Amino acid sequence: MDAFKKGWFSETGLDCSDQTVVSYNVEKILYHGRSDYQDILVFENKFFGRVLVLDNAIQCSEKDESAYQEMITFLPLNSHPNPKKVLVIGGGDGGVVREVVKHPSVETVVLCEIDEKVIEISKEYLPFMAEGLNSPKLVQYIMDGAEFMKSHQKEFDVVITDSPDPNGPAVSLFKKTYYEAVKEALKPGGILCSQAESFWYDLKLIQEMTKMVYDIYPVVEYASVYIPSYVGGQIGFLLCSTDPEINFRRPKHIMSSKELLSCNLKYYTPEIHEASFVLPGFVKKKLFGTS
Amino acid sequence: MDAFKKGWFSETGLDCSDQTVVSYNVEKILYHGRSDYQDILVFENKFFGRVLVLDNAIQCSEKDESAYQEMITFLPLNSHPNPKKVLVIGGGDGGVVREVVKHPSVETVVLCEIDEKVIEISKEYLPFMAEGLNSPKLVQYIMDGAEFMKSHQKEFDVVITDSPDPNGPAVSLFKKTYYEAVKEALKPGGILCSQAESFWYDLKLIQEMTKMVYDIYPVVEYASVYIPSYVGGQIGFLLCSTDPEINFRRPKHIMSSKELLSCNLKYYTPEIHEASFVLPGFVKKKLFGTS
Repeated sequence: MDAFKKGWFSETGLDCSDQTVVSYNVEKILYHGRSDYQDILVFENKFFGRVLVLDNAIQCSEKDESAYQEMITFLPLNSHPNPKKVLVIGGGDGGVVREVVKHPSVETVVLCEIDEKVIEISKEYLPFMAEGLNSPKLVQYIMDGAEFMKSHQKEFDVVITDSPDPNGPAVSLFKKTYYEAVKEALKPGGILCSQAESFWYDLKLIQEMTKMVYDIYPVVEYASVYIPSYVGGQIGFLLCSTDPEINFRRPKHIMSSKELLSCNLKYYTPEIHEASFVLPGFVKKKLFGTS
Repeated sequence: MDAFKKGWFSETGLDCSDQTVVSYNVEKILYHGRSDYQDILVFENKFFGRVLVLDNAIQCSEKDESAYQEMITFLPLNSHPNPKKVLVIGGGDGGVVREVVKHPSVETVVLCEIDEKVIEISKEYLPFMAEGLNSPKLVQYIMDGAEFMKSHQKEFDVVITDSPDPNGPAVSLFKKTYYEAVKEALKPGGILCSQAESFWYDLKLIQEMTKMVYDIYPVVEYASVYIPSYVGGQIGFLLCSTDPEINFRRPKHIMSSKELLSCNLKYYTPEIHEASFVLPGFVKKKLFGTS
């Protein structure tokens, strides 16, 4: 399968691309170039709107990015009693920051993105996400997340890893050393929420990661979200905490209908929060040993 | 996009195929031909296993068919206090019947499939589903479902519509007259569960159908399932009942871990039953007016 063929973009940058490839009709190519780290593409599709692609793998689309950004943000933030300082690693498109600053108790959000070009391109072509980068609550660093955390210990209530798949520049964000480094960067009772792949395509990886992370954090859960621009239509997050008493399935901050509306949330609700931790039998069995 | 290109099958038979097309590496074509009603294809893919395609639209794959079959079956059956007689309309591959006969109270399942060729091909190439067609509890008719129901009034505890998209031979199964006919075929307190499309791709259709069905049944709900072989990775079911007191979200028959195991269920659990009715904010708002 060619990546561009007669006006179509085919997503060939995934591990599963030898067996399944999704193709998108390209209305317009808005940007295509290379940064120091990766190939970057922004195109427009009539159904999905503007689509951001890194190394031939779709990162987000205008149609469904709110599902991903809201869930990776409000699952951990609403599980914390009072999140004031939040670190986002990756997330140069600005979508996660846009959501984080909606939370009433958040005072500071630090964005640590390794690839400045992603920020620049998002500001130009994906303003619906990059608007988050204009927040006065934001402090922005262009550097490696693990490197940053070495000099920021016990500082954050919540850390969010908004990473691509474990290929290219994001591979270190799926390693044990990363999860250990985050633990040191968290305040007592802090929470980590990391992009953690698809249970249809990556169940073995998720199982290995869950097991690995249990060595570091007493509580580990996997939450799932529907998202049609990712192959298979599903992705999940690993939520970990140093607080052994935490119950991720019952949010501490339950957003009212009025708050959901004023925050302009499209996907997240308190009920979706709880339901996202309920996994299909075969997934539950593989990750936690019981169905 | 061509349907076959250099050993790939591209799913070009969907309404969204002008914007998004999923392609599958074809390990082997097992069958390709035409019945009186539609084009039928069975191929093998290394990830999805055997895949059944009607009119260039994927119906089910070995990898994930259990998610669909278990949910379309056990959502209605476990919401009924004592389902003894079940009618399956469509479902010629046998997968739904395979699940229905697992339920302890079911005495008879009637399959009403319009296209005999689907049954024949499934028996030959998709035995993991077609095994359901060997059940002694099965009575099989080759005819139009609406036609069948005219002479079978107040007979069924549960009716399941296992249909393709509303194109080709299945178009009538999405009409008001069909939902009215099912009401007449149901015993008092009976339940209908129908394949009801994707909230990402077909939300307007689902909204119109929900509204339409409310004119006929006092209780209507939409339940969702993750399924990677359908474009967008999600599909749902409309569940309707003539019993105004029914609460689909709380199963009447709660299957134990032992029962889930003995029934060889891979996806369905009592917790997934409840969670499948919890919809993303934008879906809930569109279908039921509140988020």
